[in-house]
Amino acid sequence: MRIAVYQTSPAYGEVEYNLFTALNALGSFRADLFVLPELFSTGYLFGSRKELAALAEPIPSGPTTRALLEFCRAEDCAVVAGIAEVSGRGSARKYFNSAVFLGPRGLLGRYRKTHLFNLEKKWFDAGDSGFSVSVFRGARIGVMICFDWVYPEVVRILALKGADIVCHPSNLVLPFCQAAMITRSIENRVFTVTANRVGKEKRGEVEIPFSGMSQIVDPHGRVLRKAPRTGEKLIAADVDPTRARDKRFTPGNDLFKDRRPRFYRDLVR
Amino acid sequence: MRIAVYQTSPAYGEVEYNLFTALNALGSFRADLFVLPELFSTGYLFGSRKELAALAEPIPSGPTTRALLEFCRAEDCAVVAGIAEVSGRGSARKYFNSAVFLGPRGLLGRYRKTHLFNLEKKWFDAGDSGFSVSVFRGARIGVMICFDWVYPEVVRILALKGADIVCHPSNLVLPFCQAAMITRSIENRVFTVTANRVGKEKRGEVEIPFSGMSQIVDPHGRVLRKAPRTGEKLIAADVDPTRARDKRFTPGNDLFKDRRPRFYRDLVR
Repeated sequence: MRIAVYQTSPAYGEVEYNLFTALNALGSFRADLFVLPELFSTGYLFGSRKELAALAEPIPSGPTTRALLEFCRAEDCAVVAGIAEVSGRGSARKYFNSAVFLGPRGLLGRYRKTHLFNLEKKWFDAGDSGFSVSVFRGARIGVMICFDWVYPEVVRILALKGADIVCHPSNLVLPFCQAAMITRSIENRVFTVTANRVGKEKRGEVEIPFSGMSQIVDPHGRVLRKAPRTGEKLIAADVDPTRARDKRFTPGNDLFKDRRPRFYRDLVR
Repeated sequence: MRIAVYQTSPAYGEVEYNLFTALNALGSFRADLFVLPELFSTGYLFGSRKELAALAEPIPSGPTTRALLEFCRAEDCAVVAGIAEVSGRGSARKYFNSAVFLGPRGLLGRYRKTHLFNLEKKWFDAGDSGFSVSVFRGARIGVMICFDWVYPEVVRILALKGADIVCHPSNLVLPFCQAAMITRSIENRVFTVTANRVGKEKRGEVEIPFSGMSQIVDPHGRVLRKAPRTGEKLIAADVDPTRARDKRFTPGNDLFKDRRPRFYRDLVR
């Protein structure tokens, strides 16, 4: 299975342009699974919840999801991509920082970001989807978004649910995540695929520089491919997802069988 | 509070020698809290459970704990150190890979290793103590041992229980841990203090080289002090334990208040 990550530099609010640019780049490449950054089609730094409202789309009926689905059908591939989602009507309307998991035959999964980062709390509702794993071409694929990285609970739960590959659309600003994701791969024996963006966004006093260095890490913590800190870039690796199913850490240790959940109760209090 | 780590190279089975060497090194230095490696007084590579039985000691009545307690009284300090523990009588007898936490006025805590590494399963019983935090000079101190590092649950639970400083006596062989402990500090905003050993042990076909690089990491993931890969070495850092109580990650994020345990139930199934 070939996994490709496209490290993008979206223009804020220019959904059509960002979508066109991304699909153009992906279309020139062959892969089974493409992973795009968080909020790849809208950009990140919303001025207000109202501005977000003007850019958010329903899933799967919105134009971004529909265009990605058409791409998956035409190219016979899957895509994981971050999208600003609107859900519900009237006073029940909610906005989520979501990621879609799409295949040639339709929607495979939708994840709503559980742990919102800083200003995102002003714009988005906290995700209510929990964590789930869907299968594509025999690979069990889980999705998390950006700041979820700092909660070791997230990759752990996805791995316990059987994920071979954790896709991680991101808009990273802090420098700690890429190293942490190597530890996530090691402690869970899974592939982790971080699709980060580059460039800066500025609104008034606030300027956010994004850190690039998208990466594909194998279940032993080896960085298979890594993008540079700046610049749009497509990186890809051929992987055998079933390698993530061998949780033996030493001849005497199976990482997951050796867990002792009766001592972990404090984690859910 | 001054924390010191003594990276040792114990001689297998030579308890008196190892204890004397360690106390001699510690005695020439002033610190509030000394952290010694896992099994610092016995060495690591037991030939059998019977061999372990000949070296294991009750806590706190055994000679190693008594000598360390005497040191804490005389020097007005605390020590965390790894000890082979025997507990119970007759058919209820058990052997634990334990760590003691000792102060000038006696035993502050005892931890029995929850996640045994590889061959340790042949010698030791799995720890039954769970994870706890004790206070010394206003610092809240938790203890874990070596391979517990690969389970993110462990530092997380200690931090949720209020630990400012996680002491981590170790006999590390794999190269992943030191980087992972930086992530543990960041994701929990705690000090982590890894006391590793150096040297090799050999029994028949089995040879184990220990990886040194003991380290003291602050709640932002900065490595305050790091020992070399080889050689006995004492490293020390002056820290303010209360810095671990500020869990703000950004102006909008408190790492612990932002946890969403209702989505974490799978961790304890």
